[in-house]
Amino acid sequence: MRHFEERLDELRKRLLEMSGLVESAIYRSVHALVEKDENLAHQVLENESHVNQMEIEIDDMAVRLLALEQPVATDLRFITSAIKINNDLERMGDLAVSIAERALNLMHEAPVNALVDIPYMANLVESMVRKSLDAFVKKDSDLARSVLISDDAVDDLRNGIYNEMVRFMEENPQRIPPALNLIFVARSLERIADHATNIAEDVLFLVEGIDVRHHAETRT
Amino acid sequence: MRHFEERLDELRKRLLEMSGLVESAIYRSVHALVEKDENLAHQVLENESHVNQMEIEIDDMAVRLLALEQPVATDLRFITSAIKINNDLERMGDLAVSIAERALNLMHEAPVNALVDIPYMANLVESMVRKSLDAFVKKDSDLARSVLISDDAVDDLRNGIYNEMVRFMEENPQRIPPALNLIFVARSLERIADHATNIAEDVLFLVEGIDVRHHAETRT
Repeated sequence: MRHFEERLDELRKRLLEMSGLVESAIYRSVHALVEKDENLAHQVLENESHVNQMEIEIDDMAVRLLALEQPVATDLRFITSAIKINNDLERMGDLAVSIAERALNLMHEAPVNALVDIPYMANLVESMVRKSLDAFVKKDSDLARSVLISDDAVDDLRNGIYNEMVRFMEENPQRIPPALNLIFVARSLERIADHATNIAEDVLFLVEGIDVRHHAETRT
Repeated sequence: MRHFEERLDELRKRLLEMSGLVESAIYRSVHALVEKDENLAHQVLENESHVNQMEIEIDDMAVRLLALEQPVATDLRFITSAIKINNDLERMGDLAVSIAERALNLMHEAPVNALVDIPYMANLVESMVRKSLDAFVKKDSDLARSVLISDDAVDDLRNGIYNEMVRFMEENPQRIPPALNLIFVARSLERIADHATNIAEDVLFLVEGIDVRHHAETRT
């Protein structure tokens, strides 16, 4: 059996690999939507089982580490955080699949507005995902805090798109389904951002021992 | 320090207590919506911090058990499942809060149809939550399987409400926002059912060692 430190490192690497897959799924799903690229959407659907498989493997790896190595203190916290982060990543992957499905629904629809804001929102959300994982790997609490700050901007963007889509539906009641699809895309992006925020909160707890879950710390 | 078995039992009891709080939050949020009962909605919002606090306590309890007792095999799996179930319950609590907020939005709106289906869907979802926790506590895999089966019925109900609301909005474009609120309520209920399904899958893994995550087992 390899040394404990090596196995922790392996866990860290696998999480980064999983995060890479999920980031690319988010990126592809949004581009499928904006550029009406059916292939990209199908790639996201096809990769889902890969992400799911990786979640199971990482979970098993973490539980085996807990069982065989019986870590204490920091290492214990690291492994239990890894289990949570793994779960957050898998849910983000599911949300990217939802976006890809919406993209397919909209493939042959005339454009709806708000497509201007969605790529912008998606960029911000993708950067939150990347930063939250970087913060975890580098134990960088400043980076983690920057993720928490972005969460409010994402909520504002989501509300803006929502209001724009309500107006659009009121003026074009014959085009309600495509507008609903975009409302759900914005909501999926917001939920991806929430998962990135969960990860950042875990990092702060891991690094500084500060419990910011449930806004116990004020976000300014 | 108390005996390990007693501490496991304490963890089980706290999870049941948490589940009781979350079930009552779901029940109240839906009744607040259907009966336009503002007090019930506010009770859900006020109880949120209690649910959040309990999540943190259960999480700490589980991690302490892992660290101090260094359990193996079944006990280890039980504790890591408890961590996940705790997380699922907390997210269900958040979804009940969303429903309560939608109920407040709709408090002074004229009735929208679909209010017939939502209480029915809510009943089914509440029973899934209760059964998934019972299955966990009693290690009852048949009960866990019955939760997986209900998940499809919930999806059908959600789709029915969605289609009904789209028709309603097309015919009443001046009443789009209240209809959207009901679409989101149905979606929150569906997501609560997904969390109950996660718990049931964890139970099957715990009891039978069968990994049904990500539909590895066919659901019939």
